[in-house]
Amino acid sequence: MTEFQVFGDWMKGVQSTMEDALASFLPSAAQTPTRLHEAMRYAVLDGGKRVRPLLVFAAGDLFGAGTDLLARAAAAVEMIHAYSLVHDDMPCMDDDELRRGKATVHVKYDEATALLVGDALQTQAFLVLSEGGHIEDAARAVAMMRLLAQASGSVGMCGGQAIDLASVGLNLSLGELEQMHRLKTGALLRASVLLGAMAGKSLRDEEVAALDAYSSAIGLAFQVIDDVLDATADSATLGKTAGKDAADHKPTYVSILGLEQSRALAEQLRTDAHKALMPFGENARRLRDIADLIVQRKA
Amino acid sequence: MTEFQVFGDWMKGVQSTMEDALASFLPSAAQTPTRLHEAMRYAVLDGGKRVRPLLVFAAGDLFGAGTDLLARAAAAVEMIHAYSLVHDDMPCMDDDELRRGKATVHVKYDEATALLVGDALQTQAFLVLSEGGHIEDAARAVAMMRLLAQASGSVGMCGGQAIDLASVGLNLSLGELEQMHRLKTGALLRASVLLGAMAGKSLRDEEVAALDAYSSAIGLAFQVIDDVLDATADSATLGKTAGKDAADHKPTYVSILGLEQSRALAEQLRTDAHKALMPFGENARRLRDIADLIVQRKA
Repeated sequence: MTEFQVFGDWMKGVQSTMEDALASFLPSAAQTPTRLHEAMRYAVLDGGKRVRPLLVFAAGDLFGAGTDLLARAAAAVEMIHAYSLVHDDMPCMDDDELRRGKATVHVKYDEATALLVGDALQTQAFLVLSEGGHIEDAARAVAMMRLLAQASGSVGMCGGQAIDLASVGLNLSLGELEQMHRLKTGALLRASVLLGAMAGKSLRDEEVAALDAYSSAIGLAFQVIDDVLDATADSATLGKTAGKDAADHKPTYVSILGLEQSRALAEQLRTDAHKALMPFGENARRLRDIADLIVQRKA
Repeated sequence: MTEFQVFGDWMKGVQSTMEDALASFLPSAAQTPTRLHEAMRYAVLDGGKRVRPLLVFAAGDLFGAGTDLLARAAAAVEMIHAYSLVHDDMPCMDDDELRRGKATVHVKYDEATALLVGDALQTQAFLVLSEGGHIEDAARAVAMMRLLAQASGSVGMCGGQAIDLASVGLNLSLGELEQMHRLKTGALLRASVLLGAMAGKSLRDEEVAALDAYSSAIGLAFQVIDDVLDATADSATLGKTAGKDAADHKPTYVSILGLEQSRALAEQLRTDAHKALMPFGENARRLRDIADLIVQRKA
């Protein structure tokens, strides 16, 4: 990850580092209970764009964080994300059969296993953050675990799921839709950015504020583009069932704003994200690249 | 909780302290998302014997731990326990309708809410441990979170659930049955004892070993008596559906050893537990009382 790498190469490097890190931070499939461990690995490994780990590593550049701690923080966030997908796909939630181009965990294994896989992945996230060399700076380790818990729980990601669940079939306003996504996906994206930065040093209030502005812009952009893709791409490209939001009568940016206005909003959010990073200068290069990636992605 | 209280009064004091602590450590039901928060409180408050919090507080006596930190550790363990019950009761697992004399969460609310309640309660456990005054001793706070994660995850409680799930309809040996329970219930009981002791001071290896011997004795005794009660008591007394193990063809101590030998085993384990506590003298009084309670309980 040298300074002169182009973004695509940097991204591949992080993704490859993360695959190894996740494989080593998950229990071996040979360890009892083997079926549970195999299913946990199935849910996490070899899949996804690793957007959250990319954010962790990109924010790590801001204050020169070490790779070991970044890998731990990124693995923790990715495990929380993976657990939420496994549970979200279950029949009592979204009832999805396809995820990242593979059968979902409850289809490949069974519902009870999917339930336990999600539960154990959440625990594993906190375990990974509670171990490792950074514990020498224990106060920062505690702060990182607290941040991850706040972002994941009932006033973060999980709360967003609950609001999403309650909103099916309702005509949400744009403000209500934004609040739901700020929790459901935004909270964990924000945590990724802050954890990467905190892996370098303890943050000052104005640094947190600038990173919050960046995170909330890319978080909304991510969701707007998700809705655009759900309405325009096919299942094979997405690696998950396309057109599901409309079929489920879920409110989306496209259903509220229309396709063109949604795309314009995403562009505006990208500009906002770049502006928020100005105080960090060249160290924020990868964070800027990721904002571009989120808005320009095709899947 | 003075030195001369009888055990019953001490126990009521801890239970009452815990009810207040749990109520304050859970998000208010008035906070968004209100339905999720209401259901989280329903799952945790006003129910159960609080065996794990009792163990935390009893072990807290060993090295003079403060009440605030004990309440936090006990609340964290109880939230993990409560989340596991909510998920365990779901249709894809044990499909139970009655728990602690009340409708289970998925019956009272719905399956999706039960899933999210369990998820959010697990997060809340780590959040509660990552906050509070004990963070001044951050290295110990990290060690406590690590212990809780190890005890709860795929090689602890959750792993025990997976083994339990895989064992339905099989003829487990006594050794296999013990291994399953050592993870499913034993790991969290052990964590309760160690967290209570660690709330007082960092533990030496021989202290951990003695407390492990105590924990594994009461852990098994707890399960043996659970099986005895499932086979002999009625649903109203238990506050949950009685006779379910036999109906589900689950292997139990009673099905393997018979009723009388199961009772004799529980008595032996009580003696073992008392012996393990000898190095701690009078400070271990409450831990001894709890071993007696576990073996003598009627529900």
